Amino acid sequence: MDDTPRTRTIEVLTAEPVRGRGAARAAGRLDRWVLARMRRRLQGIPLRVSLWDGTSVSLADTAEAAEVVVKDRHTLLALVRDPAVAFGDAYAGGRLEVRGDLVRLLEAVYGHWQETRVGHRAEPPRRQPSGREQARANIHYHYDLGNDFYRLWLDEQLVYTCAYFPTPGTPLEEAQTAKFDHVCRKVRLRPGETVVEAGCGWGALALHMARHYGVTVKAYNISREQIRFARARAKAEGLDGRVEFVEDDYRNLRSRCDVFLSVGMLEHVGQQNYRVFAEVIDRCLAPNGRGLLHFIGRDRPRALNAWIRKRIFPGAYPPTLGEVAREVLEPASLTVLDVENLRLHYALTLRHWRARFEEAAGRVSEMFGETFVRAWRLYLAGSEVGFTTGYLQLFQLTFARAAADTAWTRAELYR
Amino acid sequence: MDDTPRTRTIEVLTAEPVRGRGAARAAGRLDRWVLARMRRRLQGIPLRVSLWDGTSVSLADTAEAAEVVVKDRHTLLALVRDPAVAFGDAYAGGRLEVRGDLVRLLEAVYGHWQETRVGHRAEPPRRQPSGREQARANIHYHYDLGNDFYRLWLDEQLVYTCAYFPTPGTPLEEAQTAKFDHVCRKVRLRPGETVVEAGCGWGALALHMARHYGVTVKAYNISREQIRFARARAKAEGLDGRVEFVEDDYRNLRSRCDVFLSVGMLEHVGQQNYRVFAEVIDRCLAPNGRGLLHFIGRDRPRALNAWIRKRIFPGAYPPTLGEVAREVLEPASLTVLDVENLRLHYALTLRHWRARFEEAAGRVSEMFGETFVRAWRLYLAGSEVGFTTGYLQLFQLTFARAAADTAWTRAELYR
Repeated sequence: MDDTPRTRTIEVLTAEPVRGRGAARAAGRLDRWVLARMRRRLQGIPLRVSLWDGTSVSLADTAEAAEVVVKDRHTLLALVRDPAVAFGDAYAGGRLEVRGDLVRLLEAVYGHWQETRVGHRAEPPRRQPSGREQARANIHYHYDLGNDFYRLWLDEQLVYTCAYFPTPGTPLEEAQTAKFDHVCRKVRLRPGETVVEAGCGWGALALHMARHYGVTVKAYNISREQIRFARARAKAEGLDGRVEFVEDDYRNLRSRCDVFLSVGMLEHVGQQNYRVFAEVIDRCLAPNGRGLLHFIGRDRPRALNAWIRKRIFPGAYPPTLGEVAREVLEPASLTVLDVENLRLHYALTLRHWRARFEEAAGRVSEMFGETFVRAWRLYLAGSEVGFTTGYLQLFQLTFARAAADTAWTRAELYR
Repeated sequence: MDDTPRTRTIEVLTAEPVRGRGAARAAGRLDRWVLARMRRRLQGIPLRVSLWDGTSVSLADTAEAAEVVVKDRHTLLALVRDPAVAFGDAYAGGRLEVRGDLVRLLEAVYGHWQETRVGHRAEPPRRQPSGREQARANIHYHYDLGNDFYRLWLDEQLVYTCAYFPTPGTPLEEAQTAKFDHVCRKVRLRPGETVVEAGCGWGALALHMARHYGVTVKAYNISREQIRFARARAKAEGLDGRVEFVEDDYRNLRSRCDVFLSVGMLEHVGQQNYRVFAEVIDRCLAPNGRGLLHFIGRDRPRALNAWIRKRIFPGAYPPTLGEVAREVLEPASLTVLDVENLRLHYALTLRHWRARFEEAAGRVSEMFGETFVRAWRLYLAGSEVGFTTGYLQLFQLTFARAAADTAWTRAELYR
């Protein structure tokens, strides 16, 4: 049972085999025509695109950030048909090579999208199936790759969400703890209060709250591996009387609480479930209750990058602040107290993760193979660049009931 | 020309004369039936309602916050037909008396609405006519009552928007200046930059920015009296080379700027114009531009109180954060950096204004009559309670282009 996900991931990532045909042959008229068409469509992006035989074009007149080498005709045609998925799959499968820096290449592409707003028009958001079974499968796919794997490149507490760096030089470990305290101060946790956490990862935030803020926590997650790990941790620390880890869907949540937290789960909820999510919060939250949603978002509605959706995060959708305000908070009559955009902090978090991931690349390759390593390298670099260029946002949104006791100013967060 | 607005306001406020009929007669069966019906509908609000002959009911079993005395049958029936407008008009016209504290009475009503969420269902938001002519008339109605009037009870700089009190004890004058600095720091004003301010009131913020931040400001307003006053002030201070006050509709705005500010205008824009407003910002803002919207808002869509809309702020609509995010920011691909809810600061600002207004009530009565004084007393008290109880919000929203240079954390706002 434990091996299922990793096997499946590898299968999916290597589903399209490298086609030998054409790789040896010189590029023909058709290939050059496709290349010229690609050049027109992507004009202005400072990249060079080359084919397997050395045929090569530059997409812009400026200095090139990197070179993309397409290794066979099949890949070239796939790139025209479905660029996002084909690029990711070909990069992972080694049928496309990046010469130069992957991050600089991605910055060139995302920067161009931002400038021309092409990306904004391109893909309408999709409403995907997301019943409880589908949700479990989606979460299992990504988060149950094995704790050993995540331990290789996350911080020692296993926190897989955006950290908060008081200064850019703060070490990752400290920044994850700083994020926990930032969250706890924003919702003004008081000893004796009850907290519900929807989507608790490996449990680090729940344990931190119980340890340092004197609260009782019920933390929910549908990832079996994460819950198992979190329970063991609570027990080892003697916190199992104060933190209960529940393996269940957020939709089944019924516990009354003073504070409702969800850090890094809303991206997996799916738009069609926002109303239900609103009902869950409304049902659980006490009359003087407060809460916080921490989620990856957008400036305007767009589907997640098709390759990421297909290979990395099935079912995920990063909403706009407006979508969350209108579809989650308004139906529950919750007051928005504070929104902070931490996108640059997520870019930096990802830079840390990627550096550690590269250090552990040999181990990861032994566990899952080279295709997996390349796929995750692209996912981590692409996410980092998404946040750097403003293609992705990280919103931390504090809300409350009207009767909640709220802070006079935010000054105390910075003392 | 200068006298038109004050004359019209007085006419409007006294449009419904007190009806003599019935005031002397004892309450009959119909009156008692209406009173009983009222009691059932408003059950739970800690108030006493009495009729002109002493007939009286308590709406709740708890201690009463205040007593409302209805002085004639006409007023009683009007309260059933259209409670919000009838209450305001009858209070202003003296056909309804509040025994006890007006603020406590309003708190009882708003608190009940919040708890039962009755107010949320009651009124769907209305899309009102709001072309340029209508906008000019709406603004003229309220803001051109005469600078002499506003000088009686606003701070010395004539700032008619929510102040920012670093502590609740900060004096109003200081708190208005603190608000200006809070806004300027949020958008990271730098010397030499150009600022556009849409809806500049009497010009205090524009002058403050030019004076202390070394920027050039173009400030727009369609209130003739305010623009005239602001220009004189700029000239007197020798700032007229750095601040230009333009009497024009925001829709005509074409000036390129590094920073786009609008403090207290969005409430008057009207939902049907949000797309146009988005286009204006998008057209004006430089590629690295930042901006801030400061506006009265809601937790969920609701029309403004009908009496306030009719007698105090024609055409006004306080939007939800979600409406602004979806209809103003998303269409312009602007990134939300920060949202701060300052509703308790507006409640305190209004408390200051009301205290000063009461001190000047004699002068105001000489200018506009007692009906006007009572109407404005109700408007100021009602707004204060709206913010105290969370029926109204004050959002300060900072936004930016993706390429803008943004702050690493918000700590510098609190240094």
